[in-house]
Amino acid sequence: MSPIEKDSIHVFAPATVANMVCGFDVLGFAIDEPGDEVYMRRVDQPGVRLVNITGDEGRLPREAERNTVSASVLTFLQHIGQTDIGLEIELHKHMPIGSGLGSSAASTVAGLFAVNTLLGSPLSRKELLPFAVQGEALACGHGHADNVAPALLGGVTLIRGYDPLDVVTLPAPPELHASVVFPHVDVPTRDARQMIRTKVALKDAVTQWGNIAGLVAGLFTADYELIGRSMHDVLIEPTRAILIPEFYEMRRIAMESGALTFGISGSGPSVFAFTQSRDKAAAITNLIQAHLTERGIESNGYVSGVNTDGPKEINN
Amino acid sequence: MSPIEKDSIHVFAPATVANMVCGFDVLGFAIDEPGDEVYMRRVDQPGVRLVNITGDEGRLPREAERNTVSASVLTFLQHIGQTDIGLEIELHKHMPIGSGLGSSAASTVAGLFAVNTLLGSPLSRKELLPFAVQGEALACGHGHADNVAPALLGGVTLIRGYDPLDVVTLPAPPELHASVVFPHVDVPTRDARQMIRTKVALKDAVTQWGNIAGLVAGLFTADYELIGRSMHDVLIEPTRAILIPEFYEMRRIAMESGALTFGISGSGPSVFAFTQSRDKAAAITNLIQAHLTERGIESNGYVSGVNTDGPKEINN
Repeated sequence: MSPIEKDSIHVFAPATVANMVCGFDVLGFAIDEPGDEVYMRRVDQPGVRLVNITGDEGRLPREAERNTVSASVLTFLQHIGQTDIGLEIELHKHMPIGSGLGSSAASTVAGLFAVNTLLGSPLSRKELLPFAVQGEALACGHGHADNVAPALLGGVTLIRGYDPLDVVTLPAPPELHASVVFPHVDVPTRDARQMIRTKVALKDAVTQWGNIAGLVAGLFTADYELIGRSMHDVLIEPTRAILIPEFYEMRRIAMESGALTFGISGSGPSVFAFTQSRDKAAAITNLIQAHLTERGIESNGYVSGVNTDGPKEINN
Repeated sequence: MSPIEKDSIHVFAPATVANMVCGFDVLGFAIDEPGDEVYMRRVDQPGVRLVNITGDEGRLPREAERNTVSASVLTFLQHIGQTDIGLEIELHKHMPIGSGLGSSAASTVAGLFAVNTLLGSPLSRKELLPFAVQGEALACGHGHADNVAPALLGGVTLIRGYDPLDVVTLPAPPELHASVVFPHVDVPTRDARQMIRTKVALKDAVTQWGNIAGLVAGLFTADYELIGRSMHDVLIEPTRAILIPEFYEMRRIAMESGALTFGISGSGPSVFAFTQSRDKAAAITNLIQAHLTERGIESNGYVSGVNTDGPKEINN
């Protein structure tokens, strides 16, 4: 074992907001909380074992080959030629599966960051990305990178293309804050994707790519008004919003409270607003949660700047 | 007449490359040459008169209300409440109509910049834009801004949206140079637009907006490789390229000579390549023109950085 290798590690990887309204399948950003935690220990007995999972209500597979965390770790170990080592993994989930906050991505990234750090960082963060994308394919049935890229690299990330995988980190203006609310209603990712039309009007696509270009320009120039004007979605949101109770009422509350934009996080049901201050984001989270409570819907609320760290080691 | 008003003015406005491969209908940039020239003189007799047009082979309307230059000037004069003044306009075109280089946009912008400057600049350049868009509607049957915006504002421009008109100037990396070739073949803009499908596959649209986001990021970071990787068009180019003889052969020549990207300028038949140096751009222009000559196709060739000036007054 090299001197920079360790015996055990505890890692946190953040939740992420994919799509960012006008960047379906290509944009995402990381937030400070919630996030998933992985404990990983080297043991003498060779092989990768999931010894404990909490917070998943028993929904995740326990077999190492089928769980995205351990399966990604196994693929990583094969890649670096270290299949003979022994690892025990504990996964502690702090956000529900199907929340639209990149739940599986956070777990996968935490596992990959943990094993890579444990073994002295043989790969860079960007080099870990393909393994995380494979993990997403296992967890969600499609190997998208719009959650794993920001979870792994932090900040706002653009998946420019998949063939080959080309990820660009975009700047995160310092005053930009997110209000994030997860209403406890069930919107499975697969169903939410299947509702989307496979053909779209060219004129709507033109509107959409004008908007994503405006958003990227706004992020580079810290032009908060431009960011807000650009974050509209004429293609995906109208379909997905149907599955989210109170969506348009939550939007009204957010926009009347000074949000720059409001939209769906990933495929929902979580929603988010961007604001130009933490206080405003906190107020919006509170107002939306209060509204949901009135309607008898439980929820979790979060307030966060753009998390530019990505995964991090936690020192116990 | 205020002291900053003049009796006559001579203005040049530049050609423009619209679409920029991955930004159909929303992106464009100005080049140094070719461009159109307008001479404008105040006269005692009220009304706007087109007294001379050269370089159009007699194809443009001579009536003030039907020609885009004088019609835009008339709309501008109505807006500022000065319909009682008398103007004589000469238009000298240095690029053919239907070249795909924003021929009508250059003329319209030259006229509007001339009349605004002649009258002491009552409007800003951005305020002139809606008048130029109206002029395009008259000339091309659709009020797009992707040629008039860069012709008027210079640089690389993004039309984020039309309702309301929202134009963002993007940075132009200093080493970025364009090789532009106009082959003398006829591709009417209206026909080129009508060939495009009105429905597109969502997955192609996603590819396209990943690319435009990558291009904008590349322009902000002067990442020439990213600019090149991003400038691909899976939606429009395959259709339009059919109308342009030797398109794929010209592309092969450009890419083998070190171009970052190659594509159609506007709706063609002009084509352009981006390179990271003026010398490379010059070499590509020469090679493509030599190839077209071999095939019996006449052409004009140009080499230019991104023109960040837009229209300018010429002192005679």
